Amino acid sequence: MLAGPVKVDPRVLQAMSRAVINHRGSEFRKVNKDVHDGLKYVFQTQGEVAAISGSGTAGLEAVISSLLRKGDRVLTLVNGKFSERGYELSRLFANPTQMEFEWGKAMDVPRVAAELEKGEYRALTVCHNETSTAVTNPLKEIAALCRKYDVLCLVDGITSVGGIECRPDEWGLDAVVLGSQKCIAAPAGLAGVMVSKKAYGQLHEETSYYLNLKAHIDALRDEEDTPYTPSIPLFFAVREALRLLKEEGLENRIKRTAKLADACRAAADALGLALYPDLAVASNTVTAIRYPPGIDDSAFRKKLLGEHNVVVAGGQGSIKGKIFRIGHMGICSMEDMRATWAAIEAVLADLGHKAKRGAAVEAVQART
Amino acid sequence: MLAGPVKVDPRVLQAMSRAVINHRGSEFRKVNKDVHDGLKYVFQTQGEVAAISGSGTAGLEAVISSLLRKGDRVLTLVNGKFSERGYELSRLFANPTQMEFEWGKAMDVPRVAAELEKGEYRALTVCHNETSTAVTNPLKEIAALCRKYDVLCLVDGITSVGGIECRPDEWGLDAVVLGSQKCIAAPAGLAGVMVSKKAYGQLHEETSYYLNLKAHIDALRDEEDTPYTPSIPLFFAVREALRLLKEEGLENRIKRTAKLADACRAAADALGLALYPDLAVASNTVTAIRYPPGIDDSAFRKKLLGEHNVVVAGGQGSIKGKIFRIGHMGICSMEDMRATWAAIEAVLADLGHKAKRGAAVEAVQART
Repeated sequence: MLAGPVKVDPRVLQAMSRAVINHRGSEFRKVNKDVHDGLKYVFQTQGEVAAISGSGTAGLEAVISSLLRKGDRVLTLVNGKFSERGYELSRLFANPTQMEFEWGKAMDVPRVAAELEKGEYRALTVCHNETSTAVTNPLKEIAALCRKYDVLCLVDGITSVGGIECRPDEWGLDAVVLGSQKCIAAPAGLAGVMVSKKAYGQLHEETSYYLNLKAHIDALRDEEDTPYTPSIPLFFAVREALRLLKEEGLENRIKRTAKLADACRAAADALGLALYPDLAVASNTVTAIRYPPGIDDSAFRKKLLGEHNVVVAGGQGSIKGKIFRIGHMGICSMEDMRATWAAIEAVLADLGHKAKRGAAVEAVQART
Repeated sequence: MLAGPVKVDPRVLQAMSRAVINHRGSEFRKVNKDVHDGLKYVFQTQGEVAAISGSGTAGLEAVISSLLRKGDRVLTLVNGKFSERGYELSRLFANPTQMEFEWGKAMDVPRVAAELEKGEYRALTVCHNETSTAVTNPLKEIAALCRKYDVLCLVDGITSVGGIECRPDEWGLDAVVLGSQKCIAAPAGLAGVMVSKKAYGQLHEETSYYLNLKAHIDALRDEEDTPYTPSIPLFFAVREALRLLKEEGLENRIKRTAKLADACRAAADALGLALYPDLAVASNTVTAIRYPPGIDDSAFRKKLLGEHNVVVAGGQGSIKGKIFRIGHMGICSMEDMRATWAAIEAVLADLGHKAKRGAAVEAVQART
């Protein structure tokens, strides 16, 4: 129940484990075409897409290093550990100004507007769903500001695309990155990238080689190919995972993910546990919960794994030890959610937390 | 029978297709440790190693971008399509001077010595086994020159390490890259990198983020971890492939690969086909063979695949259409070699090439 890598359907594992084929032959071109089409579907875009053999970070670096240049001013919005990556990457490839917001709280959109109004920025980076704090940021509003001030809107959608509404074309996003091991429920190893027609026209090839975004986009679109040897098993896996997503339907998956989030929050509430973020900005793909007084993070997660075979994530950075996080994206089911809370209830009780036994499972059940 | 991706053992496919685990947990740390140990074994090194989720090119970029800086003079030795990559990467990250040699011929080592003697170079790039022409370059001699003139020796070992003798520590190589889909016979998607203690001390973190080589080395060595989300299935696959390699023994695999190469060359000879490279520099992991007059590349390879289910590679660049290439690295067996030549004989005969039927298979048989 991590916030990625997530559970993978047996169909996806089976697709991945087939014998090796030639990645420059007609059979693999068909795989590339399907991955291409599937990425356009999950991004709901008429823009350009790429599939890069590497992690989500590789996708973000491809975007930032291929769009920006040293000296380009970038406003990097930071309210957690993953949004910091937008700053770190911009520091290497451009000239960032970091704007920080309190972790777990809603972003102050007027503050962003006031900064962009200065007219000094070529681009802005924002993490749609900040996985470290389980907060969904107001991407639609921020994208509208980017359009107003003619600033490229570069989005980390690694734990949102395919699980939380994200409309690159409609909202005017210039680049969005997803990770294969998150909402599309494939194994880790592939980054999906979309860029707008406008951003595509601004891509350059002066900085990156392996992560040259234009080379990846052009090869996939024009020749159903990849510029370098692709991670062949991952392409098979992602193709199958995107098929499963299409079978369920993007809207349905987003709705189902919201329902899981609602059940997860209700279960926490039933045990008297507080959410880490404000409810108004709580994510639908991952839930962060504060430990009640006296519960030790390491003991809790160790028992949960050792006695119940349930894996949840801890906190990161300044909130390490203070929270735990439950991922509920991809093919996570209500049965998974029930089993998870049954285990959490048992472990918390063992560790001395007082709550009505069965309350969390009941709360999940009531929302099933 | 490509020069990679190569055939993969069912044990490797099975290892790869297991259910997803947490890449930050103790179970995956064990996987990282095994991959770490396995890479040290195949590189026969006491130096530093890294496993990077990406293609061999990603590994080369990690080396060049993390060791060199703009302005650093690099001598790039080029005698085929893959060695050109050393030049292209150095063009982005340093200041290369290209030294070209005739394709298919032995490199002129004294010419390299004369150039290095000028004392202008910080580094040299060389492709140990040039896959496009099926030539093995005189790496040991070139490395000795690098030591003599105190020049970093950066090596593309993508189709040599694990199949052709390559002794980084003994020969004084500063960085070597291998690709998972080549001699170690895992699926495509992971690059293995070794760097010498000396080169490790010169790594910087100013240019690359995802391909920051120091970050990859330090995480693996100090914490059995990766700096970014790894391609989890590939790590399982590579661990198993490296186990298979160790079970066979590196020396045995290299000897077996040489025997396969010998059989392949004998089979070509038996049909009156000429090698593309000079015999003295012919590779043991891939064999390039000239088409006899009147045989069309596309028709030949199409029939070979369609009627015999055998895939061989064509030529690249200026020798496209003039040669075909047979890969015989990794777990390729003498049975594979026999079947391949049985098919080639049949197809060549169909296409009008005159030769004694059965001669190629007999030649392979005689060396089994």
